[in-house]
Amino acid sequence: MAKRRAAGEFELIAAYFRPLAEGHAGALELADDAALLDVAPGRRLVVTADTIVAGVHFFPDDPPDLIARKLLRVNLSDLAAMGARPLAYLLGLALPKEAGAEWLEAFCRGLGADQEEFGLALIGGDTVATPGPTTLTLTALGEAVPGEELRRSGAKAGDLVFVSGTIGDAVLGLEARRGGLEALQGTLREHVLGRYHLPRPRLELGMRLRGVAHAALDISDGLVGDLAHVCAASGVGAVIAWPKVPLSEAARRAVEADPALVPALLAGGDDYELLFTAAAEAKEEIAALARELALPLSEVGHITEGRDVRVIDAEGCEIEVEQLGYRHF
Amino acid sequence: MAKRRAAGEFELIAAYFRPLAEGHAGALELADDAALLDVAPGRRLVVTADTIVAGVHFFPDDPPDLIARKLLRVNLSDLAAMGARPLAYLLGLALPKEAGAEWLEAFCRGLGADQEEFGLALIGGDTVATPGPTTLTLTALGEAVPGEELRRSGAKAGDLVFVSGTIGDAVLGLEARRGGLEALQGTLREHVLGRYHLPRPRLELGMRLRGVAHAALDISDGLVGDLAHVCAASGVGAVIAWPKVPLSEAARRAVEADPALVPALLAGGDDYELLFTAAAEAKEEIAALARELALPLSEVGHITEGRDVRVIDAEGCEIEVEQLGYRHF
Repeated sequence: MAKRRAAGEFELIAAYFRPLAEGHAGALELADDAALLDVAPGRRLVVTADTIVAGVHFFPDDPPDLIARKLLRVNLSDLAAMGARPLAYLLGLALPKEAGAEWLEAFCRGLGADQEEFGLALIGGDTVATPGPTTLTLTALGEAVPGEELRRSGAKAGDLVFVSGTIGDAVLGLEARRGGLEALQGTLREHVLGRYHLPRPRLELGMRLRGVAHAALDISDGLVGDLAHVCAASGVGAVIAWPKVPLSEAARRAVEADPALVPALLAGGDDYELLFTAAAEAKEEIAALARELALPLSEVGHITEGRDVRVIDAEGCEIEVEQLGYRHF
Repeated sequence: MAKRRAAGEFELIAAYFRPLAEGHAGALELADDAALLDVAPGRRLVVTADTIVAGVHFFPDDPPDLIARKLLRVNLSDLAAMGARPLAYLLGLALPKEAGAEWLEAFCRGLGADQEEFGLALIGGDTVATPGPTTLTLTALGEAVPGEELRRSGAKAGDLVFVSGTIGDAVLGLEARRGGLEALQGTLREHVLGRYHLPRPRLELGMRLRGVAHAALDISDGLVGDLAHVCAASGVGAVIAWPKVPLSEAARRAVEADPALVPALLAGGDDYELLFTAAAEAKEEIAALARELALPLSEVGHITEGRDVRVIDAEGCEIEVEQLGYRHF
């Protein structure tokens, strides 16, 4: 078998994707065998990839522009978690026949909007036909200062644990997208849906945390699961105080209406906020950074000598959080 | 929807893929948010990606180690076509349930063998479940000397056109894989099957052609189709002399048995030999390079002022080659 493709299809694809490569000379108009990328002197390449499948990671009838933007942002969030600055990306698309010109046009419009916002360009990839569901792999390339990348493995007992933004909105957004959470209506419902569809990669924060955070990652597998990743990589444990976990107004209302949602908020993925640990002495510096970036950075707990990750409620009782097993390789 | 995955599956995947990352410290054991890669001072990153789908680009029952190796080699061939040296790769896998431990083990064994042969390592990626066919995206990273990358766009009227190795074996191998070509048996049949399943990326040749070739690409869409790409990018035409096109013994026998195969050999993809153009004065240098690399480099035609790509037989008559429309984006 081989990559046979109708000439018309090729022209179509080129027409949609080439404009996304215009801002980057090294993309060679997507017309050569590979793309060229300069990494600035004294910088190191940082690279990550995510694969998503229709019906598994997104709803087949999600707006194509939102699918595209979330895929890009999820990868940018990984760059943010390393303290890297985004440079460029490649896209591998396996598309069913149903994904016609209209779908592609909207998909590329979404990419174009986010490219501009986050300052990067498409430099290469591959588009093929599939008899299966739409399957998309995005590889994002960024650069960081060697030795100053944020890692998962540097957390120390006594560190404070911080998170950016608010926690649990995306899992509520997913539930709303599925038609649930009827208690949440109007702008509150829109808020959680927006958080689910359009995460905000915390790129500026990631870069500013270099030299401040001892360990960091982005919350894609849920607050507890991702803190467990940091603890496993660092050989430590952690305690989270539920009352300190920052919630949006929508999440507060949802929990008031149904307190049984608490474990879901703690374990739900897709928030794409940064979680990081830092020495207690850095507290003031982090508060100043939060003000400067106009982004809440909340202390939610601390790192312990043990190996367990525990969540404590306002009365000091442990909250059981099912380990949902959201994982990356 | 979100990336929920059973913890057991995660451990399985980690067990198979982590050893492939051991040779590269920047892979961070595939356990962080992104990978780190140093590009040597004075070098530029070269990056390419290919996506393949079971039932479209490979047979679902192909041996998994051969699927893996071909996917890697096809990308390395793109790096070769740019004159780049491979550094590392990322892998996005969407796997159906049927792809169990045995399939993964064989797939990774294939990658391991080729990593060693070509000197690169797995540094990242993503593995997800799919209800559809196995869908694989590989992103390969290499480095080249800025300004010395081989491009498609430098061919000049009067240039000679060269190809490495032999042409048309892979399309015969595909036909044999489908159960056809009964005239070809024994080692000849094995030869074309091997050429179809395991292309040889011409990395050393690509690096040595820097400063010699005016234009280059790898033959993935067929000799005529790929030469047409060079001509379109360079604003020139070309004439190929069919009697000069280098054939393996298997291809010669196949054409003797069925002369109607000639257009298929000229238009068939997947050979992954390098096609390049160079000044007539470079002929001796290229002959010396062929001897040094023990790799045939055959002059098959020349570049013209026009825009057409034509193929001439021994009597000077034009051979009609259907444009099959194998294309990349």
